[in-house]
Amino acid sequence: MDPRIKIFAGSSHPELARAICAELDMPLAKSETVKFSNENLMVKIQENVRGCDVYFIQTSAPPVNENIVEMLIAIDALKGASAARVTAVMPYYFYARSDKKDRPRISIAARLMADLLQTAGADRVLCMDLHSPQIQGFFRIPVDQLVGAPILATHMKTWDIQNGVLVAGDVGEAKELGRFANLMGLPVAIVDKRRYGDDDRAVATNLIGDVEGKHAIIVDDEIATGGTIIEAANFLFARGALSVKVAATHGVLSGPAIARIHDSRIDTVLVTDTIPLRDKLSDKVRVLSVAPVFAKAIRRIHDGDSVSDLF
Amino acid sequence: MDPRIKIFAGSSHPELARAICAELDMPLAKSETVKFSNENLMVKIQENVRGCDVYFIQTSAPPVNENIVEMLIAIDALKGASAARVTAVMPYYFYARSDKKDRPRISIAARLMADLLQTAGADRVLCMDLHSPQIQGFFRIPVDQLVGAPILATHMKTWDIQNGVLVAGDVGEAKELGRFANLMGLPVAIVDKRRYGDDDRAVATNLIGDVEGKHAIIVDDEIATGGTIIEAANFLFARGALSVKVAATHGVLSGPAIARIHDSRIDTVLVTDTIPLRDKLSDKVRVLSVAPVFAKAIRRIHDGDSVSDLF
Amino acid sequence: MDPRIKIFAGSSHPELARAICAELDMPLAKSETVKFSNENLMVKIQENVRGCDVYFIQTSAPPVNENIVEMLIAIDALKGASAARVTAVMPYYFYARSDKKDRPRISIAARLMADLLQTAGADRVLCMDLHSPQIQGFFRIPVDQLVGAPILATHMKTWDIQNGVLVAGDVGEAKELGRFANLMGLPVAIVDKRRYGDDDRAVATNLIGDVEGKHAIIVDDEIATGGTIIEAANFLFARGALSVKVAATHGVLSGPAIARIHDSRIDTVLVTDTIPLRDKLSDKVRVLSVAPVFAKAIRRIHDGDSVSDLF
Amino acid sequence: MDPRIKIFAGSSHPELARAICAELDMPLAKSETVKFSNENLMVKIQENVRGCDVYFIQTSAPPVNENIVEMLIAIDALKGASAARVTAVMPYYFYARSDKKDRPRISIAARLMADLLQTAGADRVLCMDLHSPQIQGFFRIPVDQLVGAPILATHMKTWDIQNGVLVAGDVGEAKELGRFANLMGLPVAIVDKRRYGDDDRAVATNLIGDVEGKHAIIVDDEIATGGTIIEAANFLFARGALSVKVAATHGVLSGPAIARIHDSRIDTVLVTDTIPLRDKLSDKVRVLSVAPVFAKAIRRIHDGDSVSDLF
Amino acid sequence: MDPRIKIFAGSSHPELARAICAELDMPLAKSETVKFSNENLMVKIQENVRGCDVYFIQTSAPPVNENIVEMLIAIDALKGASAARVTAVMPYYFYARSDKKDRPRISIAARLMADLLQTAGADRVLCMDLHSPQIQGFFRIPVDQLVGAPILATHMKTWDIQNGVLVAGDVGEAKELGRFANLMGLPVAIVDKRRYGDDDRAVATNLIGDVEGKHAIIVDDEIATGGTIIEAANFLFARGALSVKVAATHGVLSGPAIARIHDSRIDTVLVTDTIPLRDKLSDKVRVLSVAPVFAKAIRRIHDGDSVSDLF
Amino acid sequence: MDPRIKIFAGSSHPELARAICAELDMPLAKSETVKFSNENLMVKIQENVRGCDVYFIQTSAPPVNENIVEMLIAIDALKGASAARVTAVMPYYFYARSDKKDRPRISIAARLMADLLQTAGADRVLCMDLHSPQIQGFFRIPVDQLVGAPILATHMKTWDIQNGVLVAGDVGEAKELGRFANLMGLPVAIVDKRRYGDDDRAVATNLIGDVEGKHAIIVDDEIATGGTIIEAANFLFARGALSVKVAATHGVLSGPAIARIHDSRIDTVLVTDTIPLRDKLSDKVRVLSVAPVFAKAIRRIHDGDSVSDLF
Repeated sequence: MDPRIKIFAGSSHPELARAICAELDMPLAKSETVKFSNENLMVKIQENVRGCDVYFIQTSAPPVNENIVEMLIAIDALKGASAARVTAVMPYYFYARSDKKDRPRISIAARLMADLLQTAGADRVLCMDLHSPQIQGFFRIPVDQLVGAPILATHMKTWDIQNGVLVAGDVGEAKELGRFANLMGLPVAIVDKRRYGDDDRAVATNLIGDVEGKHAIIVDDEIATGGTIIEAANFLFARGALSVKVAATHGVLSGPAIARIHDSRIDTVLVTDTIPLRDKLSDKVRVLSVAPVFAKAIRRIHDGDSVSDLF
Repeated sequence: MDPRIKIFAGSSHPELARAICAELDMPLAKSETVKFSNENLMVKIQENVRGCDVYFIQTSAPPVNENIVEMLIAIDALKGASAARVTAVMPYYFYARSDKKDRPRISIAARLMADLLQTAGADRVLCMDLHSPQIQGFFRIPVDQLVGAPILATHMKTWDIQNGVLVAGDVGEAKELGRFANLMGLPVAIVDKRRYGDDDRAVATNLIGDVEGKHAIIVDDEIATGGTIIEAANFLFARGALSVKVAATHGVLSGPAIARIHDSRIDTVLVTDTIPLRDKLSDKVRVLSVAPVFAKAIRRIHDGDSVSDLF
Repeated sequence: MDPRIKIFAGSSHPELARAICAELDMPLAKSETVKFSNENLMVKIQENVRGCDVYFIQTSAPPVNENIVEMLIAIDALKGASAARVTAVMPYYFYARSDKKDRPRISIAARLMADLLQTAGADRVLCMDLHSPQIQGFFRIPVDQLVGAPILATHMKTWDIQNGVLVAGDVGEAKELGRFANLMGLPVAIVDKRRYGDDDRAVATNLIGDVEGKHAIIVDDEIATGGTIIEAANFLFARGALSVKVAATHGVLSGPAIARIHDSRIDTVLVTDTIPLRDKLSDKVRVLSVAPVFAKAIRRIHDGDSVSDLF
Repeated sequence: MDPRIKIFAGSSHPELARAICAELDMPLAKSETVKFSNENLMVKIQENVRGCDVYFIQTSAPPVNENIVEMLIAIDALKGASAARVTAVMPYYFYARSDKKDRPRISIAARLMADLLQTAGADRVLCMDLHSPQIQGFFRIPVDQLVGAPILATHMKTWDIQNGVLVAGDVGEAKELGRFANLMGLPVAIVDKRRYGDDDRAVATNLIGDVEGKHAIIVDDEIATGGTIIEAANFLFARGALSVKVAATHGVLSGPAIARIHDSRIDTVLVTDTIPLRDKLSDKVRVLSVAPVFAKAIRRIHDGDSVSDLF
Repeated sequence: MDPRIKIFAGSSHPELARAICAELDMPLAKSETVKFSNENLMVKIQENVRGCDVYFIQTSAPPVNENIVEMLIAIDALKGASAARVTAVMPYYFYARSDKKDRPRISIAARLMADLLQTAGADRVLCMDLHSPQIQGFFRIPVDQLVGAPILATHMKTWDIQNGVLVAGDVGEAKELGRFANLMGLPVAIVDKRRYGDDDRAVATNLIGDVEGKHAIIVDDEIATGGTIIEAANFLFARGALSVKVAATHGVLSGPAIARIHDSRIDTVLVTDTIPLRDKLSDKVRVLSVAPVFAKAIRRIHDGDSVSDLF
Repeated sequence: MDPRIKIFAGSSHPELARAICAELDMPLAKSETVKFSNENLMVKIQENVRGCDVYFIQTSAPPVNENIVEMLIAIDALKGASAARVTAVMPYYFYARSDKKDRPRISIAARLMADLLQTAGADRVLCMDLHSPQIQGFFRIPVDQLVGAPILATHMKTWDIQNGVLVAGDVGEAKELGRFANLMGLPVAIVDKRRYGDDDRAVATNLIGDVEGKHAIIVDDEIATGGTIIEAANFLFARGALSVKVAATHGVLSGPAIARIHDSRIDTVLVTDTIPLRDKLSDKVRVLSVAPVFAKAIRRIHDGDSVSDLF
């Protein structure tokens, strides 16, 4: 690779950064984040970056808010050190679910993050499967969005899907279903949730479509605490599903998620490594790597080639 | 009303502007748009607006692009004339469907429009039913978004909906279905469209849910050429629907829409007047006015009261 | 030419864009503008432009306002597609006559256009004969302004100008006269117009200088409806002019212009092709091409050479 | 006056500031500019201005560049001290003649000044007779431009103008002539200057129109060194003018101007006090005060009334 | 108080916010910060703030980086909810020590924080004892900086200071010494630290001035881990000091600070409550409240009165 | 050198610019600053700079404010002429001492200068020994700050410093002392100044540390009128100093400085040529050139190499 390309890793996911560098056959650039006793961070960029094409890799993983601040400080340091261009590589974008104002007097934090990144000096963004495609519009700088569906679908085709049905856990989250349905040629069904009275929580009430006697595959963009998929799985079994698998790009798997999945009747959960899973794994969870596709995208961006066939 | 509040109308929808002023019991402020032989526009603000709280009403109606330019010129003129605050009131927001980058190398024009409005000097925005809620995040200035569903639903409840089912014409457009389902307590169904081969056009292939022996109500945020709803209606009749009605906030009804609806088996199309229908009406089309809710919102914004219960 | 240079044409004047590309011996880059039934435009950039030096050619021709919006969308798309630099090439700049606030509460729309172009992402501008040279100051980005006078004057010298006199149609528009007078070594005269009473329209009242027994050549930067030049021509004939010719860079020739010229005593109108004339021609109208000078300027800008000797 | 209005004077023209305050029957607000031995300036705002409507008066008088820096520092200090609004009152705008790029690689400094003022924090601008009206477009903030012609013309009508003719000293500067001609009902003439060979200097070559046996009044927006008007006066006398008077808004009268005028055949020079004349006066020079019109404009701006009838 | 003033508290220091509100005899405005399982924060502003003058109180206390993000989200939400003005009240400013580039390729994070606050929408800042006074220059918005020295000095005068000497722990931190020396009329001394070889750590090497037989009072702007003051105290005892007290505005007291102080020969540590101390107290630590001075400042800012006598 | 690098000199210090060019073995680029009779400046860039890496050298020397305006105009002209990058090289930064708000309602002018430079179009900054290191944070663009101490110290080591002591003239200015003490291995002392009553002026009251029987070297970042160092020198002699030398990076030497130094007991004053001394020299003043280090820094910046070992 051109020596003027440099890839730095924030604290959130150095494994992925190293895997991407390995794909590109180049070393990870050197930096160090010091955390002082007063919790202030200092990001030391330990290589000359003047005129370089720099990629800073940070994903929304715990401690999320500290990782945001680390990323902003790092980007500011890189620009102050005269990097020619800094691309914020965020496999799992920060605050992606805060993409609309669904109650009064809240922040659209996904937009605020976009503004903060630009204030810190980011020149472009590379990410995967934004919660909604409109988030690209939150940026004035170019955004390349990679897509996890082909990675997941390639693996899912190795499953026995003869009698399968793709399921969305909520009417509002059914958009992705179309993409998977087209890739895999399967029928679809949607869990219809309703809110009753003043209760804030939506309850699975009805199934639009049919899963009886079929192997259900719930698809979503992310799995957080697992509550939604487990409720959906139970609902699908109650409606006669033979088995339930789950596929999602972003395996947040926060709090009790792994334990819940382990104890549930779901047999397989397929995710990618946009978020580090570390010690959180159950043998039901299968992880696919996004490093090859990110490496390919970085090479293309650096060379000025189109990445549009990657998404 | 406070004399420092002034409402101006662009060329796109003076009827609505007058109706809003009538609700507020105040005169429409005077302005004139001159179109020179070279097609350049000059917007003359014919009242002193120094220190005033100004509302400029323009909706996305033909000639759409000229109306955009007129609005930008008017806002620039109002700010240059020292208006204290200019609110762009756009009942049907411009380029709302261009809210994502669903193919390479296109503009997210809904975001561009937000930037242009802010460049021209708009201080805040008031609109209704943005195609996706994320569009609010395209603005740095405060946006109040009114909702058409309660207006439509109030009228829809006067229909005989005992045996009704709410239908979305596409999996990707099913989000609004939830809101209506909660408001009206009806079951839902979704038309599943698929793309075959290289063909760009999605075809209704499957019905998720059931309409047999039921009165179907297709809900959407807008009706453009009518092609989608007529295809959906035919599909629903083929699946055993007893009747098909349509409800949508924005009645674009462009090109052959009215004729198509007139000739179709759809019995009723319910829209609001966010877009002027003028002579386009068929007796199948029923129009509800949004003037009262816009008037209420303007009064609240001017008084610094919360408008959150309006949406 | 360097393959990293790409020239795109908006809808306003593809002929000129093709002529410029022919001069540069390179193909016009591929793009397509789709106009949906709701009049929204989508500009599809059909070539990879990452890292390219892009020129987008759009001129102020009907439909003017739609062409403005198309240009803004195209520039936004090009920048979002990672073009290294986008130059807005506007042979006839938009809203150039709206360059001052000559009545209260109007927009200086030529300045607004400059702001909108910069908001959309334009990096530089190339144009010809701005109505006033101060318009360059409306931009923060570099502007190269080409000059039509040498093109016109070179042709005018082929006329029999022995006994000629250059005439400005208004005291306020006499600036250009000096340039032509210096180029051609001819005397000058100016029509003195006055406003009477409340009438908004200025009437030719007096001739400053002398045209008796001479061949008059009215020079201006643009000809719009032709009203001004025909009134001036009649006035000059009344003052004893032997013949009247007209030379102007921008042949807007809107509305009745061609018919009026055809029916007038003016014998020749000389313009350039900064605006497409298409089927508007009379045999009195002679059109010179600006493609060679624009091609030369684009090559120089791309090479980082000075274009100052071109203007 | 409302105590929240405060008028401060920069170092360039405290006399005018005091005259304006006297018209408004209010004290000049207290400030002090200290110049340290290293020539750095410190502007001390000596009154609380939180929430106030502040006017800072500075005109382009020597030392011009130091006065620019003083003004920028003062505006920054006022904004930092929480003034609600700061209006830069510049009777004679800075670098007004640098309003176009009439040679390669120069700054349009009048635009740069506008940008610097906005960077320092100016919220609006009040000035008089900008060299070209397009300069208003250099600002994004509201600009009110007062006009000197009515002040001058009111006085000029007290002269014996029966047999008068208004004269512009150059074709390129003839715009103002129209305004005066309409106000005074006089004929006009224009001096035609040409450049010969490589010489940079234009020479009066020809007279467009006629002054023989008439009393000539040269009108211009400013008189700098006086060279132009004296050359024009000599030329007019040579063409038979009976007498020559001069009227201009801005009496820069730099360098040898007063001596030259004194020694010339010009009998009267009429200017306003937009620039302090101090000890530069000859008895041929008559100065009219702009304080009343500036005072009126400030009162109107503060009250949110229109100032458009003042210009 | 005017009902249009609203004070909100972030999660970092609600006690101080409540104390300030108590001083102002007004309730703390209602908001709630929800932390989701994926660590994303949602700040719900639970009162209408349209047109209000809002103060958001957040101090640099653990978890520091999460509190930064909470503050940015809250300010964005408040501006989006149409607050007229949002003042970020930061008793202990974030990243104040990162105010210079003392090694290559690092961020001046105190400046970055200023930019982020302005991007989020902060209109002004109120803080106390910035580590260096230049930090005010990092903001374009008005900053009011309160001073802790008078609060500390008032209390210190109750000590027996007859035979006292004020000591700075480092030559580079001696600036504040002057202020205290002037307030208390005491002599001063400075610990001279040097770096040896490649070691990054400076060691107390020499005492400039004299403490023998005196009661030493070390003054600083903050106490972090306590390492510096304990080293200095030991050094002073070795040089003959009779006793050592410490006074500092910001009691960070991170990590082992309290235990170290408790075990040291320092008899008293005086700090203010700009940072919550909660359960960290030793009986050697005395805390003074800054609530009265912050309350006074907020009232003055709201009323448009000068706060300059408060600092 | 690469022909795309161009170094221009402003009017303040052409000698230094030429010396830097000589070090780099390249010609000074051609420009001319014209000052018109109305004191307006026009900077003519007399070489093509399209795509070039441009360095504009201007230092804070009289006439300071005019030099600021010249620099802003030049940078604007260079950017308008399409320079790829413009670095403002300011050996002695403008208004560096105005870096904090040490009294109410003043501008932090060093920050304002940073903003003005960025508004004019500066892309980066190269300077030496900013009065406080926080000034780097006033810029959003990269700043490289060179350090004078090694240049001075190298020369100072040629002095007989066996029995030397480094002295700071004020507690607040003692920061630099540490750097010199580490470089030279000498003890330090600090003059303690106090303010009495309402008097604004601090008086040397006490000496912290000891100079008796030693050779004192006062170090500071700049020498302005010389008042401070002469007062300090007298104070040091009174305390038993054997001799007094002075070393400072910036030799402002304004007003009576040279005469005062000449008449004082100070034997040597060592400064650099960041400011032109011209005819101001006394034989007590020794000037070292910064041209080599600036030349080295420019070469490194152009090549994209790190300059961090230069400071």
